[in-house]
Amino acid sequence: MSNTEGGIIRTLRCKFPNKSGINDRLIDAINRENARIDKVSVVHKGRHYAVSDIEVRLADADALTKLLERLSALKDVTIVRVMDDILKLHQNGKIGMTGTVPVDSISDLRKVYTPGVAEVCKLIQAHPEWKDHYTSIPYTIAIVTDGTAILGLGNIGAVAGMPVMEGKSALMYQFAGVRGIPILLDTTDTEEVIATIKHIAPTFGAIHMEDFASPRCFEIEERLEKELDIPVMQDDQQGTAVVVIGSLINACKIAGIELGKAKIGMIGLGAAGLIIGEFIRRFTGNPTLGTARTEASIQRHVSRGGIAANFDEIMKKADIVICTSGVSGLIKPEMIRKGQIIFALTNPFPEIMPDQAMAAGAAIATDGRTVNNLVGYPGIWRGTLDAGAKKINWEMYRAAIMAVAGAAPKGELIPSPLDPKVHLAVTKSVARAAMESGAAQRQMDEDYFEDTELRYPLDM
Amino acid sequence: MSNTEGGIIRTLRCKFPNKSGINDRLIDAINRENARIDKVSVVHKGRHYAVSDIEVRLADADALTKLLERLSALKDVTIVRVMDDILKLHQNGKIGMTGTVPVDSISDLRKVYTPGVAEVCKLIQAHPEWKDHYTSIPYTIAIVTDGTAILGLGNIGAVAGMPVMEGKSALMYQFAGVRGIPILLDTTDTEEVIATIKHIAPTFGAIHMEDFASPRCFEIEERLEKELDIPVMQDDQQGTAVVVIGSLINACKIAGIELGKAKIGMIGLGAAGLIIGEFIRRFTGNPTLGTARTEASIQRHVSRGGIAANFDEIMKKADIVICTSGVSGLIKPEMIRKGQIIFALTNPFPEIMPDQAMAAGAAIATDGRTVNNLVGYPGIWRGTLDAGAKKINWEMYRAAIMAVAGAAPKGELIPSPLDPKVHLAVTKSVARAAMESGAAQRQMDEDYFEDTELRYPLDM
Repeated sequence: MSNTEGGIIRTLRCKFPNKSGINDRLIDAINRENARIDKVSVVHKGRHYAVSDIEVRLADADALTKLLERLSALKDVTIVRVMDDILKLHQNGKIGMTGTVPVDSISDLRKVYTPGVAEVCKLIQAHPEWKDHYTSIPYTIAIVTDGTAILGLGNIGAVAGMPVMEGKSALMYQFAGVRGIPILLDTTDTEEVIATIKHIAPTFGAIHMEDFASPRCFEIEERLEKELDIPVMQDDQQGTAVVVIGSLINACKIAGIELGKAKIGMIGLGAAGLIIGEFIRRFTGNPTLGTARTEASIQRHVSRGGIAANFDEIMKKADIVICTSGVSGLIKPEMIRKGQIIFALTNPFPEIMPDQAMAAGAAIATDGRTVNNLVGYPGIWRGTLDAGAKKINWEMYRAAIMAVAGAAPKGELIPSPLDPKVHLAVTKSVARAAMESGAAQRQMDEDYFEDTELRYPLDM
Repeated sequence: MSNTEGGIIRTLRCKFPNKSGINDRLIDAINRENARIDKVSVVHKGRHYAVSDIEVRLADADALTKLLERLSALKDVTIVRVMDDILKLHQNGKIGMTGTVPVDSISDLRKVYTPGVAEVCKLIQAHPEWKDHYTSIPYTIAIVTDGTAILGLGNIGAVAGMPVMEGKSALMYQFAGVRGIPILLDTTDTEEVIATIKHIAPTFGAIHMEDFASPRCFEIEERLEKELDIPVMQDDQQGTAVVVIGSLINACKIAGIELGKAKIGMIGLGAAGLIIGEFIRRFTGNPTLGTARTEASIQRHVSRGGIAANFDEIMKKADIVICTSGVSGLIKPEMIRKGQIIFALTNPFPEIMPDQAMAAGAAIATDGRTVNNLVGYPGIWRGTLDAGAKKINWEMYRAAIMAVAGAAPKGELIPSPLDPKVHLAVTKSVARAAMESGAAQRQMDEDYFEDTELRYPLDM
C-alpha cells in the first residue's frame, strides 16, 4: 500500500523451527530475489519455533510476488503475514489500558482491591459527586460509532471502523490527556442507539460521537444532549465546524475578504455541512446559501435558518464556497470565480484539487487533509472536562473557533496538530468560555489559565 | 480509615498563594500540633498558587481534628482535601488509557490516522476476521456491572462500584496483559441489561460480568452466553467457583478427606453458592446439600441437580460446608462438627472466623479474604482469549480449577495472586483445555505452552 521512492517496503513475519541453518537459508533466499533486507526483528525465539519480522525493500509488487513464491517453497518456513508499514503500525491495535497504581505487595492489594476498595465505594455512595475525585470517570470519554459513515468510506460497519476510533483515542490521550474508550455499536436503529448510549453513560465524563451518518446523527446528538447530564459532541458535526470556521477566519484574512460581510455557500448539507452552516450563521450573523443532493437535506438547512440555492447560483454568487458533498471532482476549474475562497473538504479526494482551484483563480483553496479535526476535538474535550461543564454551549464552541484561528502561524489557515500549544490554547479558551458563560461546574484559578502545561483543576 | 501502629497517617492537600513565608507558617502550624510530617510533595507551583500534599502522622482522630482547626485558622491556606493512604491511592481512579503507537511527525499521523487508517478499515471490511490482527478488540474485555451486588455492600449503584471495576481492570492488565474496560449500567432491568451489552459487544473480545445480584445474574449470564459469539463469565459465579473448588482440593488433601466421596453442604445459594454447587457436582459427581434464605433459591438449586436440606442437617451431616450466605456470624462454634472443612466466604465478615472454627474442631477453616478470585479470572480470561474460544466450556473451567489447586505451595489452600506463575499456569491450562476440547479457534504451538512468559499466539 505505501510506496517509497525506488520501490516498496514490506515486513514479512516468518515462522520457522528454531534450529540452525534455517535463518541463513531464509536470508539467502531473500537476497537471491534482489530484495534488500532493511531490518530483522526477532518476535519470538522459543524451544521449538522462532518468529522474525523481516523488513525488505523491493523493486515493485511483482518482485514481492516472486519473493513470496520462493519463500513458500522453502521447507519449514511459514510466512505468517505480509505487512506494509501502515499495517505494521496498526498491528494489535493502537491503544492500551493500564493500571496506574503499583500492586507489588499484599498490602497494596488490600488497598487497591478488597477490603480497602470498599471504603472508597461507600464514600461515593454517600457523596456521589466524589466520583470525580476517586474514579477515572470525569476524564474518560466514550468514542461511540455505529459505523454508518466511517471516514469517506461510508457504511462499512462499526468493527471495520475500529482503527479510526482507536486513532481518535490514541491522539486524544497524546494531545489532551483524556482517556477515549471506543464503543462499537451493533445497531443502527436510532432509538436503540440512544438507549444504549444512555444505559452506559454513567461510565463516562462525556460522549464523543464519531462517524454516525446523516440525518440520524442530528436526532441522536440532540436527544442525547437533552437527555444526558454529560456533554455530547459529534466530531463530524461540531468538531468539524469549529476547525472549518477557525481556518476560514484565517483564509479571509489572507484573501482580504471580510467574513462578516461575505456571501457564503454550502455545497453538501450532511453531518458536517449542516452544522458548519449553522455555526457560520451564529458566528457571523450572515445568511448562508446551501444545496445538497436530497430535498430533505435542503429542507433541514432551511428549517435551521439557511437559504436554499442551486449549485450554479452558489458557484456564481458566493465569495466563500464550503463543500462537503462527498463527490470528488464535482467542481470544474471553469466554475471557479476569481477571488473565491474554496474549501473542498470531501475525503480522501476533494471536489476540486486545491492547486487546480488556485490555478483557476481562487484566492485561497484547501481540502480536508489540511483542515484537520485533530486541532479541535482534543482541546474542546479537555477544556470542557476541566470546567466540569455538562454541555458544550455556543460560547465554548465560539472560543474554540477563535483559539484554532489564533493558533495558526501567520499566513497559514490552520495550526499543526502536532504542536502541543494548539491543544493548550483550545483547552484554556474553552474552559474560560465555560467559566464566563456560567457552564463551568468547577473552580479554575489564575494559574490554570496561565500554565503552559495542561493541569487538572479537579485537584486544586 | 487506615490505622497504623502508633497513630494515624493522613495526607492533607493544601492550597496557598505562592509567596514566601506561607509554606513555613504551614509547616510550623503542623509541628505545633505534634503532628509529624512524613512527606511533602509539591502538586503544583504556579505563578499565583501552590498546592502541596503533606503527609502527617498523628496520635489519633482527635489530634487530626485539632490540626485541621489550627490550619483552617491560617490566613490564605485552604485544605483542599484530607486523604488517608487508601483514598490517596484511589485518587483520580486507577486505570489509564494510552496510545501504543508514537505520533511524532506528520508522516506518523498520516499512517495512524487519515488517510492511512482507511486502508486498515477497508481490509477489515473485506476480511472481518482480521480485526483480531489490526485492532485491540480480541484482548479487550468489558467489565460490566449494574451495581446491584457490589462486594458485600449490596445494591449501591454502578457508579459507587466503579472503584471495584477499576481495581479488576488494573489487576487484569497487570497479571494477564488483558485490557479491561469498566462499563457502568444505568439500568437494572434484565432485558435492558442484555440488550445494552449485546449492542456494545462488537467492541470486545469477551464480557466479564461483575457484581450483578442473584437471581437476575443467572438469566443475564445464560442469555448472553447463548446470544453472543464471544465468551461471557460472571466473576462472582464461575470465577468464584473455580477458585473455591481449587482451594477445596487442597483443603481435602490437608484434612485427609477424599473430595470425591465427601458429603458437601452449601449454605447460601446466591450468585456464588448456586454455581459453586453446580461446579462441585460436575467436578466430583457427588450430590450436594443446599439451603438458602428463600425458597426460590432452594428450588433453583434443586432444579440444577442439588438436594434441598436444612441448616442443621447440613452442619451435622456435611464433611465440607461452603457458606456464601451473606450473614456474618451465622455459624456458632458449637455447631462445628469435628474434622469438618469450613469455607465461610461471606465478605467482609465471614459466617464464622476461621480461628474460632478451628478451635471448635474444624480440620480446615478459611474465609473469603483467603479464597481470593484474583487467582482465577486473569488467567481464565487470558487463556480463553489466547485460544480465541467463543465460550468457556466446562473442560476449560475444570482446567482452571486444577491449575489453581496445583499452583498452591504445599500445605496451602491457594497460591498468592502476586505470583505471576499462577496466572501463567491458569492461562496455559485453560488454553490447552480449549484446544483439546475443540473450543480453540486459534493455533497454539508447543512454545506457547512451554513458555515461562505470556505470549500472543495471534502473532505466531
